[in-house]
Amino acid sequence: MGMSEVIYTDISEIKNIHIFGRMGKVRQPMPLLFNGSGIEVVVTGSDLWIDLETDSDFHEPWVAYEINGAFIGRQMLLPGEHRICLFRNMESSIPKRVRFYRELQAMGDDGVCKVMVKGLELDVNGSFLEVPKYERKIEFIGDSITSGEGSYGAVTDTDWLAMYMSASVNYATMTAKLLNADYHLISQGGWGVFCGWDNDPRHNIPSVYEKVCGLCGGAVAKELGAHEEYDFASWQPDVIVVNLGTNDITSFNQPPFVNPEDGQTYKQRKNEDGSLNREDELKVEKAIVNFLTMLRKHNPKAHIAWCYGMLFCDLDLTITEAMTEYRRNTGDTNISFFQLPDTTMETVGAHMHPGRASHEGAAKALSNYLRTMMNW
Amino acid sequence: MGMSEVIYTDISEIKNIHIFGRMGKVRQPMPLLFNGSGIEVVVTGSDLWIDLETDSDFHEPWVAYEINGAFIGRQMLLPGEHRICLFRNMESSIPKRVRFYRELQAMGDDGVCKVMVKGLELDVNGSFLEVPKYERKIEFIGDSITSGEGSYGAVTDTDWLAMYMSASVNYATMTAKLLNADYHLISQGGWGVFCGWDNDPRHNIPSVYEKVCGLCGGAVAKELGAHEEYDFASWQPDVIVVNLGTNDITSFNQPPFVNPEDGQTYKQRKNEDGSLNREDELKVEKAIVNFLTMLRKHNPKAHIAWCYGMLFCDLDLTITEAMTEYRRNTGDTNISFFQLPDTTMETVGAHMHPGRASHEGAAKALSNYLRTMMNW
Amino acid sequence: MGMSEVIYTDISEIKNIHIFGRMGKVRQPMPLLFNGSGIEVVVTGSDLWIDLETDSDFHEPWVAYEINGAFIGRQMLLPGEHRICLFRNMESSIPKRVRFYRELQAMGDDGVCKVMVKGLELDVNGSFLEVPKYERKIEFIGDSITSGEGSYGAVTDTDWLAMYMSASVNYATMTAKLLNADYHLISQGGWGVFCGWDNDPRHNIPSVYEKVCGLCGGAVAKELGAHEEYDFASWQPDVIVVNLGTNDITSFNQPPFVNPEDGQTYKQRKNEDGSLNREDELKVEKAIVNFLTMLRKHNPKAHIAWCYGMLFCDLDLTITEAMTEYRRNTGDTNISFFQLPDTTMETVGAHMHPGRASHEGAAKALSNYLRTMMNW
Amino acid sequence: MGMSEVIYTDISEIKNIHIFGRMGKVRQPMPLLFNGSGIEVVVTGSDLWIDLETDSDFHEPWVAYEINGAFIGRQMLLPGEHRICLFRNMESSIPKRVRFYRELQAMGDDGVCKVMVKGLELDVNGSFLEVPKYERKIEFIGDSITSGEGSYGAVTDTDWLAMYMSASVNYATMTAKLLNADYHLISQGGWGVFCGWDNDPRHNIPSVYEKVCGLCGGAVAKELGAHEEYDFASWQPDVIVVNLGTNDITSFNQPPFVNPEDGQTYKQRKNEDGSLNREDELKVEKAIVNFLTMLRKHNPKAHIAWCYGMLFCDLDLTITEAMTEYRRNTGDTNISFFQLPDTTMETVGAHMHPGRASHEGAAKALSNYLRTMMNW
Repeated sequence: MGMSEVIYTDISEIKNIHIFGRMGKVRQPMPLLFNGSGIEVVVTGSDLWIDLETDSDFHEPWVAYEINGAFIGRQMLLPGEHRICLFRNMESSIPKRVRFYRELQAMGDDGVCKVMVKGLELDVNGSFLEVPKYERKIEFIGDSITSGEGSYGAVTDTDWLAMYMSASVNYATMTAKLLNADYHLISQGGWGVFCGWDNDPRHNIPSVYEKVCGLCGGAVAKELGAHEEYDFASWQPDVIVVNLGTNDITSFNQPPFVNPEDGQTYKQRKNEDGSLNREDELKVEKAIVNFLTMLRKHNPKAHIAWCYGMLFCDLDLTITEAMTEYRRNTGDTNISFFQLPDTTMETVGAHMHPGRASHEGAAKALSNYLRTMMNW
Repeated sequence: MGMSEVIYTDISEIKNIHIFGRMGKVRQPMPLLFNGSGIEVVVTGSDLWIDLETDSDFHEPWVAYEINGAFIGRQMLLPGEHRICLFRNMESSIPKRVRFYRELQAMGDDGVCKVMVKGLELDVNGSFLEVPKYERKIEFIGDSITSGEGSYGAVTDTDWLAMYMSASVNYATMTAKLLNADYHLISQGGWGVFCGWDNDPRHNIPSVYEKVCGLCGGAVAKELGAHEEYDFASWQPDVIVVNLGTNDITSFNQPPFVNPEDGQTYKQRKNEDGSLNREDELKVEKAIVNFLTMLRKHNPKAHIAWCYGMLFCDLDLTITEAMTEYRRNTGDTNISFFQLPDTTMETVGAHMHPGRASHEGAAKALSNYLRTMMNW
Repeated sequence: MGMSEVIYTDISEIKNIHIFGRMGKVRQPMPLLFNGSGIEVVVTGSDLWIDLETDSDFHEPWVAYEINGAFIGRQMLLPGEHRICLFRNMESSIPKRVRFYRELQAMGDDGVCKVMVKGLELDVNGSFLEVPKYERKIEFIGDSITSGEGSYGAVTDTDWLAMYMSASVNYATMTAKLLNADYHLISQGGWGVFCGWDNDPRHNIPSVYEKVCGLCGGAVAKELGAHEEYDFASWQPDVIVVNLGTNDITSFNQPPFVNPEDGQTYKQRKNEDGSLNREDELKVEKAIVNFLTMLRKHNPKAHIAWCYGMLFCDLDLTITEAMTEYRRNTGDTNISFFQLPDTTMETVGAHMHPGRASHEGAAKALSNYLRTMMNW
Repeated sequence: MGMSEVIYTDISEIKNIHIFGRMGKVRQPMPLLFNGSGIEVVVTGSDLWIDLETDSDFHEPWVAYEINGAFIGRQMLLPGEHRICLFRNMESSIPKRVRFYRELQAMGDDGVCKVMVKGLELDVNGSFLEVPKYERKIEFIGDSITSGEGSYGAVTDTDWLAMYMSASVNYATMTAKLLNADYHLISQGGWGVFCGWDNDPRHNIPSVYEKVCGLCGGAVAKELGAHEEYDFASWQPDVIVVNLGTNDITSFNQPPFVNPEDGQTYKQRKNEDGSLNREDELKVEKAIVNFLTMLRKHNPKAHIAWCYGMLFCDLDLTITEAMTEYRRNTGDTNISFFQLPDTTMETVGAHMHPGRASHEGAAKALSNYLRTMMNW
């Protein structure tokens, strides 16, 4: 039977396409910046290919693809050009909805890591149909949990590697699907709202939120347009889910961190009775207040739901105190707090992070919550 | 085979007994004041009976019993004397652990409602063995959810009746079992921490917390010793679970209430944008702060966990603001907030209250939470 | 509020009633002969009572009742007259569907055991409405599994007592509900299709199948009409579920039985390699063939589904060999074999019998099976 | 960081390796003939690659890989040479257990389809450790169900394509894992024990069972050694699970098939009342008897469990009649029949075949069954 004859189209030339994830001005080739970032098309025709260019050093990108909403494949991409067949020999006349997306979070630790979509190759008998509109838009902001860390891998695995992260087994993706929502993911393992798990004060999400992808550093940032100011007007979510706090609370139990940039030592402290040092707790709260303010500035109508608890919930009263402070200061009541179900021994994945069952449970709870809260 | 010969013992004369639920000074006959209130014995012998006296008007008490931890029976008790066989013809030499308890909440709306245990009748070959000690103690304070309202009955049932309430299908009982904990239940359907679902300002749990059973009014209160000051020193819980707020938030959507006692009108208001009137919200918060203060006064070492959310969680930020206020005022950090899983269409019971599956889910989440929080 | 004024009606005088379970000619008082036997009415009015007369020696009957399809209560009935309130103070104008039924199997071991329904007392404002017709009819024939043995009680309980058996937690009742079917239950713990678990050749269900209730012996049989020939024409099932074989296979591992009636010794033998002695296996098969013939004689149109396996399935090939033999002999193809899900450590109940979860799993599988097989 | 220096070893030179699936004499490159066929190694070192050569026409092979028992990736392989990275940058000193296997069944419809493993490339610091021995051995023989057809893909998908089949989401793989068993898979979608779903008499598994891989036809058969007689002595299973019958029963409802090889018409017939034509039913039974005889000849000690029912079970009495016939003829009692749980609307996958949940349920039931049956 052999291969069908296909026609290549630049990704930026395809009008009937849905793009997942934040985009800057660079559209050709199109950078997939975050996990969950990807493209979706509805096509007739028997064969479809995607052309990519990737680079990486330590942390190679992984990608996944699905057909008609069902997971089909997942693989590692080593540096170079790639031509991946998304399907072949399918019944030509039946429309196929195909999604291709990045599994690996924006990789701050790998200066050259990138996934660039150049174009699609569709067989000559096929055409790009309109992609059905998503009813809702949700932005997820988080840490390793939202990066799907440990969603792949054995419970015993402890290496910190790209292959264990995903968008495919991820409460955010699942929630968006359950709600028929378009979504953006902005997350980074180890980062917090105030500082990283290891007390590194630079590892806070607010500091990068306003760039297209502030998590990407170094060499390729310019090529990707990652350091441009993000055009918030281009995509206004109905709901922003902030799932941060897990690393902030961890920092209280970790050794001090010496910041190589300023030579100073940073440490969130605990009192002798095990409670949080009030001064340090207030630093977290100030960061939360400021972040809420920043989120509101850029997303004036979005409901902001702080959703926390998949790796225990001991920062509840700190987060809510800050939310209260923000609410008092601003009168903004379009915010809420929701606790996600904790991960248990039965639902845990690799290196003590949420596994598939935990992500599924969180997605079920969160989608129920948003349905009620948003009258969806 | 007929009936075994049995020997009656006054309940107050039985030394090897565990008593569930608050007790005042009245011990003979022994009043079972709350749902979950009951007695537990471990006995040899083939037959065991319990002798009771009950009264009621509209809301007849229900009781349930279990053997070796498993539910066996549940029935209505109409006014009068009762002699209920808890088991018979069992292998005499094997110890049986038997629990008998009240299903119906303390019934504020039925002035004569009572359940009095007079004694047990054990067959002549049996004896009362020591009841194994419970490792932990938990006090649950709540509303209709903690009264198990709707835990029995069809989803379509809407009458407000005693038979739909329980301790047997109840997250509090289940949680206590999962944690091998003794427990007290203090709850009342329709009540809140500040006011009732219908804006009735009298229907707040704090106002009755310091009595043995302040929920019992009228005729029989004295007989039961219900209005005595409760001796908190007699039973100090490791954890207090407060599951209140569901009726407080409901009151904001209900018509005004005219209090027959003072002729005044009470109403928790909403703003035009649907948010809570700040003044009224602060009334709830003040009630929470005061209640936490009261709880701490009487339970200096208990961890206080406000656990809320089985019928949605829209009062989260109000509750936590109050908890923060309390924490700031007092420096007391031995408190926490935990959100219980919401009831869904799949887990709902009678008249839109949590059903068995919802109670089971809540118990699983709450017991996991307390294990981690308490290092249990 | 007190008690409503009620009007008593003989059970045989109530036209709008559904009767569950086999009935003979005795209708007043109406004997409930099997577990699951009971009555169902739909009534308006606020209060409903049932009047009963029971007797027993060792094995006291238990009963259960439900309102609008939901379990409400379950209790032991000791010998005597009983007046049980099924509901009170309900909204008078709303129709209530009420079922009252026997939990305890026909008790062959207790010669005087009986449950007689004398009548119902409905409040003066109520009336008996038509009971909606069930769409289907299923007869369940079985052993301890179908008698719900161990469906109540702790996993550690090993006494053989009435309180551990039920129709309320029973795959047969659950299956009938899932299929909106009327049902009959004919079952006896320890009995088989050929012999009892202990090799007692008298303990086979076919020997009693043609009587109204051949399981009831002795003193009260006449009073109950239990030994009359059953009028099969009065109730022709769409499906007969035979769940027998578990005790027949057990007998191969048990010591010989000396039948006190004929002084002879009975023993189903195994070969040295652990396989079944062929001669003895053929005795079981002959009993199955004969039983199928008997079932067909009395139920010419019913689909006969042999449904087996809730306590392992090692008699599969014996049962199906006999079914094949029957099919070859008669050309009757309106029979089928279905394996029920095995009970596991997670789903087991008291004394190693199926617990609630096992019954629920069996009901789900069986109702799915019957939907497909019967085009329901 | 770049790439580690690696050392290539021919697959046939690696002593510390476990091979899944049937092998003939061809070992270099090593053909992976069936779904589930693959290799497993335990290695130290930071990087591991596998070198492959594949070919195909219409039905391209898919492969999957796992680390320490957890699924990591799955991808399509188009014709050519492949070098796939199985992991990189892992902690060198910690042993990693890696499995790489074919997802696609032996593809009878694609004459050139093949997957050949040439060798592994392990980084210079790594070494091949001993692979822990599997405790048990199971051979699975089946049709599309055992080929995992529909285990990937959306419920709405109806194309018959390689990408929808798998060993990764497959009850056979799951069962083997639950039992810590090595396993062989021999299966083909659409085939039966007597004939194919479409009445094609050539599509019966027994006709190919004795070859290494009789399913592979044409051009590449010789290269793969597929048509050699299989050396049964090389791998004697403890249990043979035969999951056949689903296509045999389907053929009774399908139009006649004209065999291009002999020009004759084949059709399994039904009687007017919907029952199976006895003559045709006996053809199926004869095929079963013959297949059991063949299995026993080659596997004298294996327990043979016919396990059937994941897509309904209407051939039960036909299969068991044949098993009985075989047992009568031979006296061989080391066989059993087990019904697998049916697939429901909740557990279905693509084109009406079992989905992940159905495979998981079947694996749970089957592993429980084998534990009991085999005293495992």
